[in-house]
Amino acid sequence: MTRLAGSAISRATTALLDTDLHLAENVIASDEQIDALRRELDEHTVDLLARQQPVATDLRMVVTAMKMGSDLERMGDLARHVAEVARLRYPDCAIHPVMRTTIQQMGQVAERIVAKAGSVIAGRDIETARALEVDDDEMDRLHRDIFNMLVDGKWQYGTEAAVDATLVGRYYERYADHAVSVARGLVYLVTGEFRAPARPDSEEA
Amino acid sequence: MTRLAGSAISRATTALLDTDLHLAENVIASDEQIDALRRELDEHTVDLLARQQPVATDLRMVVTAMKMGSDLERMGDLARHVAEVARLRYPDCAIHPVMRTTIQQMGQVAERIVAKAGSVIAGRDIETARALEVDDDEMDRLHRDIFNMLVDGKWQYGTEAAVDATLVGRYYERYADHAVSVARGLVYLVTGEFRAPARPDSEEA
Repeated sequence: MTRLAGSAISRATTALLDTDLHLAENVIASDEQIDALRRELDEHTVDLLARQQPVATDLRMVVTAMKMGSDLERMGDLARHVAEVARLRYPDCAIHPVMRTTIQQMGQVAERIVAKAGSVIAGRDIETARALEVDDDEMDRLHRDIFNMLVDGKWQYGTEAAVDATLVGRYYERYADHAVSVARGLVYLVTGEFRAPARPDSEEA
Repeated sequence: MTRLAGSAISRATTALLDTDLHLAENVIASDEQIDALRRELDEHTVDLLARQQPVATDLRMVVTAMKMGSDLERMGDLARHVAEVARLRYPDCAIHPVMRTTIQQMGQVAERIVAKAGSVIAGRDIETARALEVDDDEMDRLHRDIFNMLVDGKWQYGTEAAVDATLVGRYYERYADHAVSVARGLVYLVTGEFRAPARPDSEEA
């Protein structure tokens, strides 16, 4: 699921910035794969709980996996939403040139953060889980940059471009939040240490 | 949790439309109550799974309750985000007068839909669960109205107001989606009938 969610956001960013309708359609269609994996995971979880009746650490692991599945499915949805914006504005590019670098960086941070989430799960890797929070801070910073560009009173590229940038910015930011939530689930599993779920920066509102 | 999420969105709408900073702060602070209930629910769920080792319908019920908790917590977050927009623009009103009626209607639909979600849970009420989907369609329609007002080329009230309307519209629409997800969880529990999770209308992008 982390690989599919990573591939989806990477392709969605390309579709958006290169105005590639075919690629956008492809991202939209392939979201169903992540949804199907999530359903499988849920069924497998309920099956495990019923048959094996796990307790203690095993039980926590099963419950955490189910929550991670929910976050990863949502990351797939958010990548799909980015692709939907690309499709909606085709043959125009939804992203105005002045925003291009920032959106490109958001795409790069999203790819980095989901790759780390995959390593965290595969290696039960607490250090990477903590490093991933730094990427999330970077994402929040980029998200604020977008807002500042839109509301500093100098925006002159039309309301449609502003609406698109607002939504796309939020999709990337939420994508990163869900990756943080996946990583924190693993930290909780390994250390028992609880941290509040990732929250979008209040400044974004 | 449905009562708290309902009270939060109702107060957030009032705070937003009446430019009431005190009420906005109040909504923001009280979100912690819903978060705490969700943590309690999760702990109670894990405890139940460990001690009682439920199977069949009981197991499905426990797993569904945990998912409903996740949706309801998120609805609280979204109400908080609406209140954060009100606070950010205070003493100005974030919502331009031309949007006022539409946002007011979104608030009303949100209150209606969360009240129905509460009835669905309390009464295991399949009919109300289905009626709630009609409210969600109404919410999607209002959400489209907002987008149409913003991108029809006639918007002349500034970019900041457009950004705020974009975000607030999305918060209400997502709030309704999560309420639909709660109701569908109950339908699944009672009938075994699976429906894909609620999705934001692709037109919103």
